[in-house]
Parts: sequence; structure tokens; C-alpha cells
Amino acid sequence: MLNVDKLRQDFPILHQEVNDEPLVYLDNAATSQTPKQVLEVLKHYYEHDNANVHRGVHTLGERATSAYEGSREKIRQFINAASSKEVLLTRGTTTSLNWIARSYGDANVSEGDEIVISYMEHHSNIVPWQQLAQRKKAVLKYIDLTEDGELDMADARKKITEKTKIVALNHASNVMGVINPIETLIEFAHDVGAVMVVDGAQSAPHMSIDVQKLDADFYTFSGHKMCGPTGIGILYGKQSLLEKMEPVEFGGEMIDFVYLQESTWADLPWKFEAGTPNIAGGIGLGAAVDYLTEIGMDNIHAYEQSIVEYVLPKLQAIEGVVIYGPKDPKKRSGVIAFNIEGVHPHDVATAMDMQGVAVRAGHHCTQPLLQHLNVQSTARASFYFYNTEEEADKFIEAVIATKEFFNHGTI
Amino acid sequence: MLNVDKLRQDFPILHQEVNDEPLVYLDNAATSQTPKQVLEVLKHYYEHDNANVHRGVHTLGERATSAYEGSREKIRQFINAASSKEVLLTRGTTTSLNWIARSYGDANVSEGDEIVISYMEHHSNIVPWQQLAQRKKAVLKYIDLTEDGELDMADARKKITEKTKIVALNHASNVMGVINPIETLIEFAHDVGAVMVVDGAQSAPHMSIDVQKLDADFYTFSGHKMCGPTGIGILYGKQSLLEKMEPVEFGGEMIDFVYLQESTWADLPWKFEAGTPNIAGGIGLGAAVDYLTEIGMDNIHAYEQSIVEYVLPKLQAIEGVVIYGPKDPKKRSGVIAFNIEGVHPHDVATAMDMQGVAVRAGHHCTQPLLQHLNVQSTARASFYFYNTEEEADKFIEAVIATKEFFNHGTI
Repeated sequence: MLNVDKLRQDFPILHQEVNDEPLVYLDNAATSQTPKQVLEVLKHYYEHDNANVHRGVHTLGERATSAYEGSREKIRQFINAASSKEVLLTRGTTTSLNWIARSYGDANVSEGDEIVISYMEHHSNIVPWQQLAQRKKAVLKYIDLTEDGELDMADARKKITEKTKIVALNHASNVMGVINPIETLIEFAHDVGAVMVVDGAQSAPHMSIDVQKLDADFYTFSGHKMCGPTGIGILYGKQSLLEKMEPVEFGGEMIDFVYLQESTWADLPWKFEAGTPNIAGGIGLGAAVDYLTEIGMDNIHAYEQSIVEYVLPKLQAIEGVVIYGPKDPKKRSGVIAFNIEGVHPHDVATAMDMQGVAVRAGHHCTQPLLQHLNVQSTARASFYFYNTEEEADKFIEAVIATKEFFNHGTI
Repeated sequence: MLNVDKLRQDFPILHQEVNDEPLVYLDNAATSQTPKQVLEVLKHYYEHDNANVHRGVHTLGERATSAYEGSREKIRQFINAASSKEVLLTRGTTTSLNWIARSYGDANVSEGDEIVISYMEHHSNIVPWQQLAQRKKAVLKYIDLTEDGELDMADARKKITEKTKIVALNHASNVMGVINPIETLIEFAHDVGAVMVVDGAQSAPHMSIDVQKLDADFYTFSGHKMCGPTGIGILYGKQSLLEKMEPVEFGGEMIDFVYLQESTWADLPWKFEAGTPNIAGGIGLGAAVDYLTEIGMDNIHAYEQSIVEYVLPKLQAIEGVVIYGPKDPKKRSGVIAFNIEGVHPHDVATAMDMQGVAVRAGHHCTQPLLQHLNVQSTARASFYFYNTEEEADKFIEAVIATKEFFNHGTI
């Protein structure tokens, strides 16, 4: 088990008061906090090595390139990609998914073809496919959910057909905390000759990922949800697919030769990385990978499961609290969306913030899911490895106090 | 005039030795250095306010949103945009130019239409237009250069015709240091009803920019070339144009409502900013704008001109050195591309790096320009406001020593 108190010393931001109460940060599914080890790497980069990458001959340029490409190799190991050519650094999961839809999608989806997603996807894994379907007159299909908020695997089997060209699903839901049986879903996709795009924004920060073992065709995630800086993310793609794909952005770094009327492209992975990249962001993500790897992704996953097993029954026990997603904590990640009956989720989040507890409220970029659940918005608490049982207790106390305040007018 | 010695104290990176010699960093056209004021803002963000923006209800989310949107307002003032709705935060100039080509270009350019650029453009202001021209069967035309490496304004007048839909030119060249008469070129574009896209990557960091006075339709630049963090840049566009344009990336933050098969978009500027943005990068760019504004862009420009007036004649006086671009220092920014006859530019840069002087060598992402100049590659020194006359002297000494080394075998 983790020494959470020791780990928390790496996060200066957690040791502050908000509204005169100790901060309990439970919005990790949106953005995680950044440990001092990562901040020190960023500072060192800017104070010693800051320079443009790849094209430099001078010492700082070589150091920056070595650190940036060294990060790519760390990330390759983190997800066990076969080659660093398969690891593209992007602005984040959203850009990664858009690039797949634009590049692979435009080249491989035609009129009448089908794209299969689910009701539990984030907007970033819905809207790019809607747009692709509109461009190509293709059909966008949604896999149903069970009553418990899990993917309906029988429906998945049925919706993924010979007409399916792309299946795009999250590995873990950003609302219901459910972890999808992604390996089986990848098999479903491959059985019909479709490619599988995995939105790993809520999984890569929380569990060990092996893209080769999964046999994922594309796997995407973001640095800022896994202790890394903002503005950096990953697009993993199988080399055989990326080789055939056209880049989405054009400019410096990604060309081989620019003639007046046409150009040829550089080799992977640079073919996709037009312009000066987020160099510090990439190096910072490498440092975050080092940090998480030292803790151990299996340890992080086990700890988060234990926190959910601790807190979920307590939340379930509060009368008038509705929880979305599986009732069994073993089926969940650290994300818990909930509502207090009769209280608007924004009021819940505001009242909890007054007690120092940071939870999110809104549609969580999942309007189709909330429509499916027949709810306008929810509050959401999301735990990470640095959250303690004491914080879980404070969260529960704040929910109870909030409920009583809105029922009786005192907090 | 600037107190450069005092300003240099803000840049820890400049006070180091490289190959046992004091660093003389002259690669600012690729990436500028980041002052401690910006690094402190980044550190403060990650240690106090780090959270996702816009959708949060809790205190950290509100602080992060306020800082991020506050930066947008600072950047608006920096370029005197009429509204912060016109200021889009992107990954950098390359992404900005690609978005304009993809969104405005795809909607407004048809078969037979013309796009006008010049021989002195960076690949990021060439390849997106090549691709647009290929998609739309449009014609891509290049404005000629004079013998001195300036834009041939008569040719510009001739090439920009009633068929022209887009003119895309840099405000300052990243190779020849020439500053283009962009206001006149914008008039040329508007005279024929074309829109003007300005690549300001080499101008916005070095001089005062007023997009309203220029009447630019689009103006793009990058944070990492103007004392800001990597991975952040700006796409300025007139509101009347941006309102009609479709977003290029789709996902969270940029939607109004997501139905199952279609979606509606948020208002400007968020319509274009899909996904979690580079929050720290945006806030850091705001801090860089504060820093530059306090020094004064006119002061920076005047100082850089004085450095070029100091160093250019000394470089011109060295026999066997070829300099590209205008001979008159008054016509130049701080960028000087050169070659030593008979020595490969990579060898020049390597030998100068041995003497602590960081210059770049290569095609500088301007292969069409170098073909036009009939040269394979060049060395390039690029000065910023923190470079001193003593550094200019060391640069000249290093060029002479390099020349003598390759002629006589001793350095």
C-alpha cells in the first residue's frame, strides 16, 4: 500500500486552506496536481536547457532535443508501445482524437460505413466522430448501457458489424467511474476488421496500460490528468497505421522537403508534429511518467480501489443521495458522480467548496450520457492516489452538511 | 535605451558556461529565453491554483479560469485587438496558420482561386496553403524578392489580383531579418477583396503590434519566441470572420449542446478551443506579455536595431562571409543568416558552439527561400533584447576564429 502522507509532501498545492478550511481536492478527473519533482524538471529545463529541438547544432539545442526525445521513450515504456515511432506528442487527448478522426477517418470511412461509440463517451470522443460522419455520410451508432451504467456487451456485439470501420470507446468513464472491458471490445472491433480507438484520458493516469497486450490500434491520453503539465498529451498509434496516415497539421519539423507546390513528409513520429512542440510540456510529462512509475501503476490502482471501497458505501448510506454508475466499488475507478435530491449540483459544489472540498458540477462534457440518465447535471468527486481516507471522511461530512443546509438552512 | 545588464539578471540560463566558455545565446529566432518573472508565475500556478478552467465551481477552478482569461485580456491589449473574442489561444503559430487554412480556407477558396504567399515564408506559412490549394484545386503563387532579399512590391501588386482569396505573408523574415511593409501589403489584399493572414512569429516578439491599425484579418504568433513558455501561441482573427468560421477541433469546452448526431458551438473565443487548454502556458504567456510591456516594445525594437547596426558592419567587413538579406541594418530585425565561404554551415555552428556561441545552422524551415537564394543551408545568428554588445563582439570573434580554423587548422 502507498505511503500517502509521504507522497502528499510532493504536492505543495494540497497544503492550503480554501475558505478557511483545509483544501480537499477531489477534481482529479478534470486536472490532477503536479508534484514538485515535475516542477523541478520544468524549472531546470527553463533555467539550463531551453532551446528549440531537432534542428539545432548548439549545446542547448542538443540538450533540449535529448530531453524531449528521452521523454518520448519514457512514455513508450509507460504504455509498452513497440516503438517510439508510435508515440506522438499532441496538445492533449482532444487533439489526439481529432487527428485520428481527421486523418485515419477521412481516408478510411465512406458513405454508409459505420462508426460505433457509446452513450458514456466524453464530448471529445463524440463530436469528432459526428463531424466525420457528416463529412462522409457515414452512420454514427451508440452502444447502450446497462441499468448499472456499464456498457451493454451484448449490444456492443450487435452494433459492431461488418459495416463498422471505427470503434471509439473510453477505457474508463469520466462520470460513472466504470472501467470498460476494453480488451474484449478491441476483439469485437478486430473481429469485423474495424480499428479500435481508445480514449484513455481516465485510465492511463490510474492503471497500468500495455497497448501491445490490449492490441489497441490507437490509444490517447493527457498529461495534465496524470501529474504532468497542461497542454501536452499522447496519441499512440500502431506504426502500420500511422505510416499510411497523412499528417493533420503542416509546417516545420514534419517535412522532408518543401518544393514550391508540394512537400514530402518526415519519418514517424515527426511527420505528425508540425511546428515547435510543447518542449517543456513533453519533458514534464516524461518526469510525471517517472514519478508515477516509481510509485507503481498497480499500487496506484489498488489504492484508488481501496479508497472507493471505503467511501462509496458511506455515500450510498446517505439518504437522498443518488449515485450514477455501478454499485459495486470493485467495478469502479476513483470517479463518483452523484446528486443530492432537490439540490442543484452547482449549489452542492458551491456549498462543498465553502467547506474546502473541491468537487465539480455540470455535464462533465457528457451531455448524451446525462440525457440517457435523464439528468441535467451532477456533482462529481474524483479521487487520486494522494487523497486520504481522512479526506474521504471530510467529503462525506460535507455532503451530509450540504444536504442538511439545503433542507434546514444551516451548514 | 535598455539596461541590458539588469535585464539579464532575469535570465538564469544566460549565466552559464558551454564548452568552458560563457554562453552567448544567439538562437532567439528559434526559441527565446524565459525570465524568472514568467517562471515564478508558472510555479505559483502549479503550487496554488492548478485546476481545470471554465467548468469548475470550486475555488481553484475559479482562480485558474480568472488567471487564464486574464491572460487573454493581456494579450488582447498587447496587440490592441478590439475584443478578447478575437484572441484564440493555440499551440503555436503553426497550429494557428493551419487552423486558418483549414477553416477559413476550406470555406472560402474554390477551384481556380488564388492564394498568394512569398519566397521568404517559413514552411508553416507555405505547406498549409499548398495543402489547401491541392484540396481545392486552387493556385498558389509566390511573390518575388529583390536582389537585396526584400519583397518585390511591384510583383506583389501584380500577383495579388481579383482572383486572390488569401494573401499570407510574414511580418518579418526568420532568415534575412527583413521587416516587410505589412500595412501596404494588407492594403493590396483588401483592394482586391482578399483576406490577409500575417505570420507574426518573428515580429510580435520584437516590435509593437496594433492589429486594428494594421487592419490585419488574421495575425499569428508564438509564446516561446517572446519570453513565454513552449506550447502556446495566438491566433488573432477579426470577430466578423471568426464568427462565420467553423472550429477545426471538436470536443469539450467548445460546444454549446451535444445531441446524439450533431452539436452546436459555444461563443467566441471558446468555439475554437476544444479540450483542456494549455492553462499554464496561457498564464505564462500573459506573464511574458507583462514582462515585455514593462520593458516597452518600442524600446526593445530600438535596442535590437542598435545591436544590428553595431554588429552587421563588423560581419560585413569579414572577407569570405556572405550575408543574406538587406545590407542596410535599418531595414533589418535582429536575425542575420550568413555563410563562411568554403565551410559547411553545420561546421560553422559546431565550431562556434565550441566557443560558447549558440547559432543555428540548416534550412531554417525555408527551403523555397534557400532554393531561391541558390544555397543549401546557412548559419543564423538571432539577437534579442538581452544580448549585449560584448556578446556581439564575441560572435564576431567566433566567426573570424571559425573561418581561420577551417582555413588554417587552428582555432
